[in-house]
Amino acid sequence: MNIYPELLSVIIEYFKKLPGIGERTAERYALSLINLNEDELEDFSSSISSIKKTLRKCSICGHLTDSDVCKICSDPDKKKNLICVVEDYKSVFMFEKMGNFDGVYHVLGGLISPIDGINPDDINIASLVKRCKENKDTELIIALKPTVEGDTTTLYIKKILENTNTKITRLSYGIPMGAEIDYLDVLTLERALFDRKEVS
Amino acid sequence: MNIYPELLSVIIEYFKKLPGIGERTAERYALSLINLNEDELEDFSSSISSIKKTLRKCSICGHLTDSDVCKICSDPDKKKNLICVVEDYKSVFMFEKMGNFDGVYHVLGGLISPIDGINPDDINIASLVKRCKENKDTELIIALKPTVEGDTTTLYIKKILENTNTKITRLSYGIPMGAEIDYLDVLTLERALFDRKEVS
Repeated sequence: MNIYPELLSVIIEYFKKLPGIGERTAERYALSLINLNEDELEDFSSSISSIKKTLRKCSICGHLTDSDVCKICSDPDKKKNLICVVEDYKSVFMFEKMGNFDGVYHVLGGLISPIDGINPDDINIASLVKRCKENKDTELIIALKPTVEGDTTTLYIKKILENTNTKITRLSYGIPMGAEIDYLDVLTLERALFDRKEVS
Repeated sequence: MNIYPELLSVIIEYFKKLPGIGERTAERYALSLINLNEDELEDFSSSISSIKKTLRKCSICGHLTDSDVCKICSDPDKKKNLICVVEDYKSVFMFEKMGNFDGVYHVLGGLISPIDGINPDDINIASLVKRCKENKDTELIIALKPTVEGDTTTLYIKKILENTNTKITRLSYGIPMGAEIDYLDVLTLERALFDRKEVS
């Protein structure tokens, strides 16, 4: 027998769909919702139900937004010819939290992965090429994860833009700040050694 | 500048109202909601908005229910003259998870605490007395936390029922002092139930 009223069981199941939430935590969250007042519950509820209706992709960069063009693309202080290319919108939020990047973004919405059937046409690359051709002297900063898929995507972008005057850079690879050298994985260490910089 | 679309900020604030959720976890949950499909979001949303409309107190024991009488009070296998007295409905869920208690419950909805201005009339005691008087040979098992408020409430119940033939027991002190009933492990709870002592 289910010990919870049906409605609570439904809510518990939805909490369990969120990342890292197990049975016990889901129960705790569901029971604590009961302590919110009616207005708060109504507001929370209607916010959740309007996610798909309200949030869309920015028509320029593909970032998550509630208007046609996102806050970042419409910010006059952002350099429009410095474009950071990321896999998804979570990376954009990460960069914006950092706070001192004065360029804009381009959200690919995935990485090229022939083994999973994801080809260049399936991700947001065509509009990136268009942006680079419209803006002279653009610098693309590739900020994709260092995996086979990330590298494949980076090389594809490099190749498709090779006849434009777009400058293409990528984030540096190396030792994360604060890490213990002893506990680094071998690949990172190898990369950090290969990319070593002269101490100035 | 807020880096999130307004709707996401609202949702993040609500997640932060749930127990133990900080800024970063709230952001993670809010962003992962976007991955649910429209039907799921609608269902989750409407479940949350109907919490106050659907859930109420059982007219017999005060436990959380979606009908007039809760599942437990209407269960024919539960002994109606064995009543476990608890502070809130979370304790009931805890006992029901343990699974081998064959009595019913009485949810006080608080503990007597003169210092906080909570008197016997402010919690669900009158209906407990009524239940005891209606049922001959009732045993009350007091399952309140071992604090001043818990003990005060226990003694008050003992005193107000002293001229009835109600047997009053309490959970044994296997319960670690200061712990919340809701977060006990099931074995400790089971042991405490088995070792219950008559209030002298």
